[in-house]
Amino acid sequence: MNDFGNIDDAVLAALGDIVGDRVSTGKSVRDLHGRDLSFHHDTAPDAVVFPETTDEVAAIVKVCAAHRVPVIPFGAGSSLEGQLMAVHGGLSLDLSGMNKIGELNEGDMDVTVEAGVTRLQLNHHLHNTGLFFPVDPGADASLGGMAATRASGTNAVRYGTMRDNVLNLTAVLADGSIVKTGGRARKSSTGYDLTRLLIGSEGTLGVICELTLKLHALPETTSAAVVSFPELEGAVKAVMTTIQSAIPISRIELLDEVQVGAVNSYSGLDYSEQPTLFLEFQGSESAVAEQVKIVGEICSDNGGGDFRWASKQEDRNALWKARHDVAYANMAMRPGAKPWFTDVCVPISRLAENILEARKDIDASGLTAPIVGHVGDGNFHTTILIDEDNTGEMDRAREFNDRMVKRAIASGGTCSGEHGVGIGKKEFMELEYGTGVAVMKTIKRALDPDNILNPGKIVDT
Amino acid sequence: MNDFGNIDDAVLAALGDIVGDRVSTGKSVRDLHGRDLSFHHDTAPDAVVFPETTDEVAAIVKVCAAHRVPVIPFGAGSSLEGQLMAVHGGLSLDLSGMNKIGELNEGDMDVTVEAGVTRLQLNHHLHNTGLFFPVDPGADASLGGMAATRASGTNAVRYGTMRDNVLNLTAVLADGSIVKTGGRARKSSTGYDLTRLLIGSEGTLGVICELTLKLHALPETTSAAVVSFPELEGAVKAVMTTIQSAIPISRIELLDEVQVGAVNSYSGLDYSEQPTLFLEFQGSESAVAEQVKIVGEICSDNGGGDFRWASKQEDRNALWKARHDVAYANMAMRPGAKPWFTDVCVPISRLAENILEARKDIDASGLTAPIVGHVGDGNFHTTILIDEDNTGEMDRAREFNDRMVKRAIASGGTCSGEHGVGIGKKEFMELEYGTGVAVMKTIKRALDPDNILNPGKIVDT
Repeated sequence: MNDFGNIDDAVLAALGDIVGDRVSTGKSVRDLHGRDLSFHHDTAPDAVVFPETTDEVAAIVKVCAAHRVPVIPFGAGSSLEGQLMAVHGGLSLDLSGMNKIGELNEGDMDVTVEAGVTRLQLNHHLHNTGLFFPVDPGADASLGGMAATRASGTNAVRYGTMRDNVLNLTAVLADGSIVKTGGRARKSSTGYDLTRLLIGSEGTLGVICELTLKLHALPETTSAAVVSFPELEGAVKAVMTTIQSAIPISRIELLDEVQVGAVNSYSGLDYSEQPTLFLEFQGSESAVAEQVKIVGEICSDNGGGDFRWASKQEDRNALWKARHDVAYANMAMRPGAKPWFTDVCVPISRLAENILEARKDIDASGLTAPIVGHVGDGNFHTTILIDEDNTGEMDRAREFNDRMVKRAIASGGTCSGEHGVGIGKKEFMELEYGTGVAVMKTIKRALDPDNILNPGKIVDT
Repeated sequence: MNDFGNIDDAVLAALGDIVGDRVSTGKSVRDLHGRDLSFHHDTAPDAVVFPETTDEVAAIVKVCAAHRVPVIPFGAGSSLEGQLMAVHGGLSLDLSGMNKIGELNEGDMDVTVEAGVTRLQLNHHLHNTGLFFPVDPGADASLGGMAATRASGTNAVRYGTMRDNVLNLTAVLADGSIVKTGGRARKSSTGYDLTRLLIGSEGTLGVICELTLKLHALPETTSAAVVSFPELEGAVKAVMTTIQSAIPISRIELLDEVQVGAVNSYSGLDYSEQPTLFLEFQGSESAVAEQVKIVGEICSDNGGGDFRWASKQEDRNALWKARHDVAYANMAMRPGAKPWFTDVCVPISRLAENILEARKDIDASGLTAPIVGHVGDGNFHTTILIDEDNTGEMDRAREFNDRMVKRAIASGGTCSGEHGVGIGKKEFMELEYGTGVAVMKTIKRALDPDNILNPGKIVDT
């Protein structure tokens, strides 16, 4: 365990020299920064600082390095595995004030933003350009946070994850140095891929301050559909065939029968309470028509019925709002319960068995837990609704999560497709990566020898 | 500078214990392993070993680590920036005997191969599966070498580069440990991205021994066309508009007028000697027809004329053979001259000016150098044809390359889009990455403290 420094008057004075009054040790501010959307217990930092420039971040990190104070980057507070918990105390670096959108290159379809810019803010800014940024993890997360946790979401099946959509990053390293990881060329074969090394590093290797993002052309036409299946295998088979047919579907989401029930109750809908796919098609009018026809046939061939098409904007909005509201729908299933959002990702050929086994485990355990997934990527989530005061229930939830994660890894998958490691999945890293964990520790020690950058996350050194 | 060990009798005996007679110090074998397709002077290793398994590679690296002998991975010998030159002596690790194709998961569209498997061998193996591996750097390179140099090629505009098409790697690190970087899930948000760290590391961080690759569905229909433009700007503008229109074009290659002349002479063709695009469209029949129509209009709007369509397989083969034979066509322009293949990559909005300035520099210098590019990515190549005995000419070539690279970096681009750094582009790393180079050196030192893995490439430590 490190011997971390405290945020004493000397540190506060040094921070004040950099940011003036944009530093706080007030309880409510600290509490707000020790809380995310995860199931993990809130752990507040000792102070919060609100930098407005990369240079300020560099100066702050230098102060923290000199005093061995942990630095925990904070974006929108929407992480799901405790990434922003101050488990060793320290300083929360709230980047929400770094929210300027910089150079927009429409010809190159890229834009440079500060880390605190949120995805909705960016897409609003892009209004009328014909371009958009596709990665959508659900919450209105900050783009810096999305890069730090390698976020993805419903559109990833077509547009990729943050790994695929960042051209370069500017980050502050543990010694306070500022590094820009590359230029704006669409590809490069030079040097170690520092961009990808920082993406997904959850603030443990550097504080992401600026990003240049790939943008995409808005599609001419969009269509959506909901289709239900008598058996989960049929739904997954339809997904596999769609992907194998190289159909550039933009979203393909699976809700299990419990999840459909929750959505029906919450959103006042009447979908069949069966395994159900939410589909979205984008492209030119004729391309969408062709995709719709082929995927319709694929679904029918696999037992899918009760199609509901939504070509009109308002119908699509209602459909995707129901999908986006899944978290609320789940919480409404058991008022007062706390939701534990967990996810895994497996090769798609192993998806049906992983979901079915998860459902069997849930039912056997007596837990309440709907299943929903970005199944085109082999990624699914369960929301376990827990009465925190019931220790037996908590134990059963932990046991279930453990079985689901181990099954995913044994299937050639990963302990998280998009929520990341944080503190919640750390215990599974060894099982997933074996000797790779030692390599990660070597890199962490080399780049952050005093372990001040978000200590206690991803790997322990 | 390191104090490297020699390959003495003790080392040879230890290697013999691992691989039997699959180790050689014969001059012709060594010479063959100190030669690639680059302009750099041949630099032979002191010995060559031919491992057949990852465990053998691990044992060999352990011997080299114990004796501080440099280890230089060798795939197919098709690198272009001197990546395999034994600049500090040492042992060439010829991976061509590791050519087994392992598990093919058609449902998941992935395959695991040993590093020595070549791209043509893999695609031959996939015959009749309806799947293919798209990354095509021209040469029949080994897939391990392609990963190590982050290769791309003509299809990258649609299918991405090696960075995007590797699911996981198994590599031997400098201490002889074997690391598998991940599973087969299509995405993961867990841990540092060791896969991407090794891709493009040119053997300096680990010896890539096995790879799991993403496969893609063979398109239903393919069509191709050649179209020429009176001005280069028009051709580049057509490319930009095509990309911005989200048309999933599978290849879009630009040949400048000098390059077209060389192709005409070599392949007995009669294209207009003007800036020319070679285009390929893939997809369903109606999707291809639609793409062809839209791109045809875009080209016409930008001054393109003299369209030649090739829908029949044999016409397409002739067209792409002419494109693939560019290297030979260039060499035939000046028999006896040595070709210096160099490339840069820039944001596409800066492409026209970068190509035009390069052409102006070439013409002013009196050099012979056609220009061809994967322009959908902003990537272009020049082949400088040089009389090696003419020192003045060599100086002018160096000066030209230097100007072209610096212009690309100043445009927000990179000193190589797909050939890599090796020894040829090392001098530009500081200009391109600034403080990032120090980070790369820190990583290199941490993972290879004795600098035995392909020393002298990418960065010096």
